[in-house]
Amino acid sequence: MSKGILVVVSGFSGAGKGTVMKRLLEKYDDYALSVSVTTRAPRPGEEDGIAYFFRSREEFEQLIREDALIEYAQYVENYYGTPRSYVEEQLSAGRNVILEIEIQGAMKVKEKIPEALLVFVTPPTVAELEKRLKGRGTETDQVIADRLARAGEEAKGMDQYDYILVNDDVEECVDHLHDIIVSEHSRASRNIDFIEDIQRQTKAFRK
Amino acid sequence: MSKGILVVVSGFSGAGKGTVMKRLLEKYDDYALSVSVTTRAPRPGEEDGIAYFFRSREEFEQLIREDALIEYAQYVENYYGTPRSYVEEQLSAGRNVILEIEIQGAMKVKEKIPEALLVFVTPPTVAELEKRLKGRGTETDQVIADRLARAGEEAKGMDQYDYILVNDDVEECVDHLHDIIVSEHSRASRNIDFIEDIQRQTKAFRK
Repeated sequence: MSKGILVVVSGFSGAGKGTVMKRLLEKYDDYALSVSVTTRAPRPGEEDGIAYFFRSREEFEQLIREDALIEYAQYVENYYGTPRSYVEEQLSAGRNVILEIEIQGAMKVKEKIPEALLVFVTPPTVAELEKRLKGRGTETDQVIADRLARAGEEAKGMDQYDYILVNDDVEECVDHLHDIIVSEHSRASRNIDFIEDIQRQTKAFRK
Repeated sequence: MSKGILVVVSGFSGAGKGTVMKRLLEKYDDYALSVSVTTRAPRPGEEDGIAYFFRSREEFEQLIREDALIEYAQYVENYYGTPRSYVEEQLSAGRNVILEIEIQGAMKVKEKIPEALLVFVTPPTVAELEKRLKGRGTETDQVIADRLARAGEEAKGMDQYDYILVNDDVEECVDHLHDIIVSEHSRASRNIDFIEDIQRQTKAFRK
């Protein structure tokens, strides 16, 4: 069985990342969602290890010191991070791990795990992006200006990704993402053992 | 319409490259086979521009001097080469061009056209490769030894390819190759214009 691929999904807010990932997990068996560790308190009904691993601030800082997190960030008062052990267990079990994360986090993951696959999700056009960000006209001008400004920043990093995934139709987009990941499993750089095995075995054939 | 991809297919003899490519062209619309130019004489019924473009030795050497060939080689008495203009016309028309070629030629193509996609076709195991090379027991020991020796040489270059395509079942292999090529169309490096367009248009959004 071949090893899974760590797939990092980023993209414009309003690009429909969440829906695409939800459908990908429903539709295909070979994916696991990365579970983040956080210092925020569990909300009623939230179990440890499902949406999040809940840890104390001291425990989280211990994880940082042990280099047990692929990446982490602090939002408001709380830490959020991606535990290396969970990701590695899933990959070893042959499952592709999907990690939704914004661009700075994605760059940190690529640095620590160069074989991670970075996918950037975008609406087909800027006009469509703008339409989605503006929503149904119920947001304040300030909220819309903030969203547009953020999209402008996010676009700067698009060329750092491996694939650009255009989300026009959700089902098509999900199938296309799945095909990209399946195809990536055949990359020569992901099959070094197989190649070396064949090279070693056919060496005896040479004259 | 996006530009086509030049797909260079190599692999062990006995790996079923020919069958896979034939089925790919039958099954999907978006491919053209590269037509080689050669100095060998046309056989009865062979038309110019179908299996080959037939040219004189002088004309061929003129093509070499004009850098009009992506790669060329001499076998026995004759030249064989890949005309750049035909390939570029097809790519511009949005068709993927498939070029079956051995490893030295593939490396030359990659040098001249870095965005070419190199695919190496292999049986699933060396045991299976050996079985296919040995055939039905009707070949002489010398013929088999030559084939094995050639496979041993070919294996050395496997790691220079972008994808390793395992041919176990022909139809699955054809669909997988098609998916690889479709997926490659979404590579960020093949969508620089689209990315720059979005970056340029969203620049105005930033604060």
